[in-house]
Amino acid sequence: MTPGQPFLCFDADDTLWHNEDAFAEAHRKFAALLADYHAPETVESTLYATEKRNIPIYGYGCKGFTLSALETAVELAGDTMSSREVRALLTICREMLLEPVRLLPGVEETLRHLAARHPLALLTKGDLAHQENKLRASGLMDLFTRHAVISEKDEETYRRMLVLWGVEPSDFVMIGNSIKSDILPVLALGGRAIHIPYPLTWQHERAEVPENHPRFTLLDSMARLPAWVDAYLASAAKR
Amino acid sequence: MTPGQPFLCFDADDTLWHNEDAFAEAHRKFAALLADYHAPETVESTLYATEKRNIPIYGYGCKGFTLSALETAVELAGDTMSSREVRALLTICREMLLEPVRLLPGVEETLRHLAARHPLALLTKGDLAHQENKLRASGLMDLFTRHAVISEKDEETYRRMLVLWGVEPSDFVMIGNSIKSDILPVLALGGRAIHIPYPLTWQHERAEVPENHPRFTLLDSMARLPAWVDAYLASAAKR
Repeated sequence: MTPGQPFLCFDADDTLWHNEDAFAEAHRKFAALLADYHAPETVESTLYATEKRNIPIYGYGCKGFTLSALETAVELAGDTMSSREVRALLTICREMLLEPVRLLPGVEETLRHLAARHPLALLTKGDLAHQENKLRASGLMDLFTRHAVISEKDEETYRRMLVLWGVEPSDFVMIGNSIKSDILPVLALGGRAIHIPYPLTWQHERAEVPENHPRFTLLDSMARLPAWVDAYLASAAKR
Repeated sequence: MTPGQPFLCFDADDTLWHNEDAFAEAHRKFAALLADYHAPETVESTLYATEKRNIPIYGYGCKGFTLSALETAVELAGDTMSSREVRALLTICREMLLEPVRLLPGVEETLRHLAARHPLALLTKGDLAHQENKLRASGLMDLFTRHAVISEKDEETYRRMLVLWGVEPSDFVMIGNSIKSDILPVLALGGRAIHIPYPLTWQHERAEVPENHPRFTLLDSMARLPAWVDAYLASAAKR
């Protein structure tokens, strides 16, 4: 990559396309499924505890969610559990995996505009097959010169990807909706981070928004990104 | 990478460490679990049909296997299925995911020997979190200058990785146990492929061994690889 040129790297779920709303809907269906046995709040808190405990071995994504939901169902429904719950959970999983990609507003136009001017990359965590299927189905794949699905978005993994891609941390600009995964580790390694919030945030991804950090920017929509890039280039030219 | 130098790239499951024997054991446990309802052959053939059908959406690995096994159990046991089967399958999945890495004979010494002389890479398909956990636990991670988990080992994906890694196809040497995934696509794109068979092959990975292909080599053990590399370098020096 050309030093001094911004290397724009995008998160995928809830940054380019909707995702968390489908998980929220799956959680609601799961609570309804176990409504005969426990209150929705109990189902939800038990499921989250199970998911959190299983992330180190399952990783992120729909398949791990479904296995954790099955474990929760066994725990909460016990011997009254039947093939009905299993069937319903497998259907919820399949529907999430097969759901068409729903791009967020402004994403396609913005990415096409930027891709004609800069190399773009995509860095996402989650289920490998599902993320790649979504990227292929999104129609956006050809706009990225680099893309990778990683198992955790921590500082170490970002560093490894920057070395692999030949990008200096000072040129790296990460754009995403998760303060925990897209913003904090990138600021820590010396990159720039642009937060475009999504209306819903999974509790596992919640973190404090950095205050007055010189390399942090909050944008309310993807459509504002080209103006940010222009301002960044103008300011870099003056330095 | 230096042109003309071999770029040695290793498959992981059943090439560096045991894997298929654990899946075979999981299949046996699953057949035993459903022994009250159906003959082991019926269980096995229904499971394989379900797995094969689900690979495009689940991808490879233990979590997809477990979800396919649950789907098969619902299909074969129907309403007689209970929390017992679910619990047992979740335990089988967890045991596979938490099983310590068992390196194959000669792997560690051979890789240490080669890593001191050449850049090594690792390219594996399967469950992202599980593959990365195994690589970390193997003690071999630092020996690889490049590693990636990919969703499918087809010619297109190999080409993409070679571009990303800056490797010429003619310098690429893939070492693995699967004719279908490690050998045929690499030969097709102009690379060299070294087949080190594993005693068990999942039926999805079975394919014809190439006959008399000039860039194909069969080795009976990883320990023979350094001699092959020396011979390759000697022959390259003469060209």
